[in-house]
Amino acid sequence: MKTRAAVAFAAKKPLEIVELDLDGPRAGEVLIEVKATGICHTDYFTLSGADPEGLFPCVLGHEGAGVVVDVGAGVTTLKKGDHVIPLYTPECRQCKSCLSRKTNLCTSIRATQGKGLMPDGTSRFSCDGDPVLHYMGTSTFANHIVVPEIAVAKIREDAPFDKVCYIGCGVTTGIGAVIWTAKAEAGCRAVVFGLGGIGLNVIQGLKMIGAEQIVGVDINPSRNELAKKFGMTDFVNPKEVGGDLVPYLVDLTKGGADYSFECIGNVNTMRQALECCHRGWGQSIIVGVAPAGAEIATRPFQLVTGRVWKGTAFGGARGRTDVPRIVDWYMDGRINIDDLITHKLPLERINEGFDLMHAGTSIRSVVEF
Amino acid sequence: MKTRAAVAFAAKKPLEIVELDLDGPRAGEVLIEVKATGICHTDYFTLSGADPEGLFPCVLGHEGAGVVVDVGAGVTTLKKGDHVIPLYTPECRQCKSCLSRKTNLCTSIRATQGKGLMPDGTSRFSCDGDPVLHYMGTSTFANHIVVPEIAVAKIREDAPFDKVCYIGCGVTTGIGAVIWTAKAEAGCRAVVFGLGGIGLNVIQGLKMIGAEQIVGVDINPSRNELAKKFGMTDFVNPKEVGGDLVPYLVDLTKGGADYSFECIGNVNTMRQALECCHRGWGQSIIVGVAPAGAEIATRPFQLVTGRVWKGTAFGGARGRTDVPRIVDWYMDGRINIDDLITHKLPLERINEGFDLMHAGTSIRSVVEF
Repeated sequence: MKTRAAVAFAAKKPLEIVELDLDGPRAGEVLIEVKATGICHTDYFTLSGADPEGLFPCVLGHEGAGVVVDVGAGVTTLKKGDHVIPLYTPECRQCKSCLSRKTNLCTSIRATQGKGLMPDGTSRFSCDGDPVLHYMGTSTFANHIVVPEIAVAKIREDAPFDKVCYIGCGVTTGIGAVIWTAKAEAGCRAVVFGLGGIGLNVIQGLKMIGAEQIVGVDINPSRNELAKKFGMTDFVNPKEVGGDLVPYLVDLTKGGADYSFECIGNVNTMRQALECCHRGWGQSIIVGVAPAGAEIATRPFQLVTGRVWKGTAFGGARGRTDVPRIVDWYMDGRINIDDLITHKLPLERINEGFDLMHAGTSIRSVVEF
Repeated sequence: MKTRAAVAFAAKKPLEIVELDLDGPRAGEVLIEVKATGICHTDYFTLSGADPEGLFPCVLGHEGAGVVVDVGAGVTTLKKGDHVIPLYTPECRQCKSCLSRKTNLCTSIRATQGKGLMPDGTSRFSCDGDPVLHYMGTSTFANHIVVPEIAVAKIREDAPFDKVCYIGCGVTTGIGAVIWTAKAEAGCRAVVFGLGGIGLNVIQGLKMIGAEQIVGVDINPSRNELAKKFGMTDFVNPKEVGGDLVPYLVDLTKGGADYSFECIGNVNTMRQALECCHRGWGQSIIVGVAPAGAEIATRPFQLVTGRVWKGTAFGGARGRTDVPRIVDWYMDGRINIDDLITHKLPLERINEGFDLMHAGTSIRSVVEF
């Protein structure tokens, strides 16, 4: 079949809207009509050429929602008409990782996914006979995609695609970092570095679990108002803090954060996030993606005196199990997505989404097909 | 009163055996006759001048056992004749840290302890009228010491001082790192860097909790035999590994360590210890003390993909609560201390203990008064 897609033919070039050929689903795979997709910084990271594992040409996009339109042989958990969110972190429920009960990082199709291929080692996309690669196992910048059954979360049918697509990455990453990675508890004090889409979702996760204090740190003062709406109790602009930021934050949190979250991807703020944690038990969670090759550092004394340094991918969420629950939370009004989706664009204007991101004027832009 | 002590009059000088004046216990304090003390690398670290917080003149030593010979006003939990282990990590059971249930790092007397003083801001030791400082709140290189009641663990009276003194630091640090900091579970695979006293105690902690695989890493081949006696299943000498150590260890542990323990105090092995952990859940525990100013580093990707970096002090043990339990474990034959105490010395020969340590011929030297 044919499908319309925004294709990244090479790094550092704008996406091009073209009609691609798409092979149908093989055994264990499903065909999804993507209804909406978010534009995430990770897509730009790869497009910019900064991602050392980036491969071209490919169809970017990993934050989508849509409807199953066909299923391959042997597919048992999905059927035509199901509303779904494709998952860049699959959940096979059978590999060592899934069975460990300690991680969401299913490894069953990792090798091929990293190469931009389906599990059988081939691509379903092609352009004028030349293969076009998949991206993060999802490629939601195409109107139709083929994905493995284990990489699909089935969601309720009354959930609006243009909102819940964001659960495919940012919402789940932020809220999950709080509840599944940090396992933060009611009454805790937390510091969130970076009040973009991820940071705001961390904040609403902290509000949901009943945090006592939620400090937001950002050099963009315009984020203050929106973050307060999501539950932030204290705003700190490092540019306005006289002296070192870390002791300021330790003082503000009455001894240090019980939990801190780095949502920027900067190794310097990662260090600050660790060191503003409370002696004895403070945990710092790295959520942001650092530039290739960048390293974090600290004195081991920080850890020996009880701080814990960890990270999260997809918020520690098991996609098929947890993503439908987050959709329910949204539909029940427990979390706010509407105010985070600041811009909507047709596919033809998808490149504008990256411009809005860099200008800092959008939280999330969504493309509707 | 008068007491005999090995005094560190200055950094880089041998200890001198002198008779000190010792004031009796004030309110909330107890006087202990030290019967035996271990000689730990941390004592040497301070004596060498490398410890930026080292203060002189002082009485070193923090790994002792003895008998209460007097108590000050208001002391309710101890009486004359009690057998005890003095604690460099007190347990007041009332401060924010003790009440957090998340850390053993009681903060009630931290400020004065760090200055070599009793909680009232004075020293009990003096020499010819000049004050001599306490060290780590314990100073077990003196035959008699005054310590706060909250810094004393009461132990059973049939436990031999010359063995259980080691529970005052090394044994508890190693075993505690496994059971209280890592909370390692039966069936886990672990890697232990450094097979000195701490590393060997980590190994017997891992054996006690039923680890499936216990890999020991040391460049000293003579440690192989002793470590196997304590439960090590695989010995790795980095000098004999062709190529990088980390992938070798990942392969040996079938995907990476569930838990790793750095018991050397070297920031390079700290990095290796983290990176040999299993993707998704491996935890690395820093036990060793790094040189002042040294920093650990890694790529944040290591944490984002699920590894956790933490540290431990005194094995996460609450001194008054947990140290008596470890004494019981020793007396019940569940842990082996006898084979770790390789040398015994009279106080007059205490400086030889440091020589034995540096030659690598001792695991632990104990001074008996």
